[in-house]
Amino acid sequence: MLSHHEIQIRVRYQETDGQGRLHHANYFTYFEQGQTELLRAAGKSYREVEETGYLLVVAEIGCEYFGAAGVDDVLTLRTVVEKVKGARIHHRYEVFRDGELLARGKSVVACIDRSGKPKRVPEWLLPEGMTK
Amino acid sequence: MLSHHEIQIRVRYQETDGQGRLHHANYFTYFEQGQTELLRAAGKSYREVEETGYLLVVAEIGCEYFGAAGVDDVLTLRTVVEKVKGARIHHRYEVFRDGELLARGKSVVACIDRSGKPKRVPEWLLPEGMTK
Amino acid sequence: MLSHHEIQIRVRYQETDGQGRLHHANYFTYFEQGQTELLRAAGKSYREVEETGYLLVVAEIGCEYFGAAGVDDVLTLRTVVEKVKGARIHHRYEVFRDGELLARGKSVVACIDRSGKPKRVPEWLLPEGMTK
Amino acid sequence: MLSHHEIQIRVRYQETDGQGRLHHANYFTYFEQGQTELLRAAGKSYREVEETGYLLVVAEIGCEYFGAAGVDDVLTLRTVVEKVKGARIHHRYEVFRDGELLARGKSVVACIDRSGKPKRVPEWLLPEGMTK
Repeated sequence: MLSHHEIQIRVRYQETDGQGRLHHANYFTYFEQGQTELLRAAGKSYREVEETGYLLVVAEIGCEYFGAAGVDDVLTLRTVVEKVKGARIHHRYEVFRDGELLARGKSVVACIDRSGKPKRVPEWLLPEGMTK
Repeated sequence: MLSHHEIQIRVRYQETDGQGRLHHANYFTYFEQGQTELLRAAGKSYREVEETGYLLVVAEIGCEYFGAAGVDDVLTLRTVVEKVKGARIHHRYEVFRDGELLARGKSVVACIDRSGKPKRVPEWLLPEGMTK
Repeated sequence: MLSHHEIQIRVRYQETDGQGRLHHANYFTYFEQGQTELLRAAGKSYREVEETGYLLVVAEIGCEYFGAAGVDDVLTLRTVVEKVKGARIHHRYEVFRDGELLARGKSVVACIDRSGKPKRVPEWLLPEGMTK
Repeated sequence: MLSHHEIQIRVRYQETDGQGRLHHANYFTYFEQGQTELLRAAGKSYREVEETGYLLVVAEIGCEYFGAAGVDDVLTLRTVVEKVKGARIHHRYEVFRDGELLARGKSVVACIDRSGKPKRVPEWLLPEGMTK
């Protein structure tokens, strides 16, 4: 897998709130898309992950906001795998508009099986050159 | 089951859009809640419906808007079962704020089994006194 | 303006529901994106529309569903301006996956000013060759 | 203002995802509702806050997840004001189902004026007995 990936997302009207800003909770929707596209760029899909018996569930997530985005803005989301340890993958996210950092997030995703038991992150989900 | 039911819903900040209005798509979220609470008022839960092997899927839905709602508004949603025919349930929805009609919707929900095949709406899902 | 436009949308994980299907209300989010991108393809942005003192509000919207979409599906959304009459624009929407029609929607959007009064749809918002 | 408040929220079908779980991003929607209801319990509304020229914007937010919630679950959300310092309010959130802690969040909300400049949190927004 790759260790980082960038995508562009255009802010939808419905994603803004009464202040005309991209609502803070919607950044988390984008982060998930970033994860998914990082996977896809490495030739995997989230559906495949589930089909091989793994579920990825968010154990922890957070975001800091430095500026506001509005409708129609095109944002660049950079998703980085920072660390993989045991059953957990640590991601970092950065959201830019024209080079200006608007938000920075991080998450810990746990790899579990269908019964909810933690499972070591499989080798094929590891970024190249990264070891656990 | 009952043939109609009313609930109150307070508009969440995140549900408003850049115009400061409850976004039109979010009325459909409320309609679904109306359906669920109509079921619950009759002593059933949607989870039970699924556990007995039925799935309810929306075949058709629509809404007309007559006024705007804003954050913190307390809306009254009236959900009515209009007709049940074969595998289909027809609902009507009305959204009021202080007696003023803001929106009126309708939907057709299809009853299917896990394989996606239509199934007659079971008797226990019928409003009292209503026949198919 | 153009009278029709196609975009591709990939279904986000968060947009699916407990049945693993793209939730029916999220099609309306896509329709709005279709409208916006139709505008943009004609060299306009929704922000500009608002800046010139017009607001576009949904007066009526609906959708019929013929099939289900799942996470990661790439959908083609075709947005068509069917008619413009006075202060109202009529759109039609079709959602395809690999050529299969999954849903068909329609909406009536009203053009109003900041005070909420209906205003004739301005010429520059009309599709080429279309008259009111 | 009060320093803490509890509300009950029933998980909507649309808020669950393909795993049948309340999607992690939707907890942030609940947290915002918690904040709003804490205000309201103290006799204020978010609308009033905005009308007096203040905007509350989220500067930082995060959540840890310990268990999953499903459709129809009734959750108890406890919202606590932990600290108010200068222009910033620190909240903590706990989500329970039948006494079991499912998630714990925290946020920092910044008080700004219409121009985006930080403003000291006004006295009337302070919890009773709390000083800055």
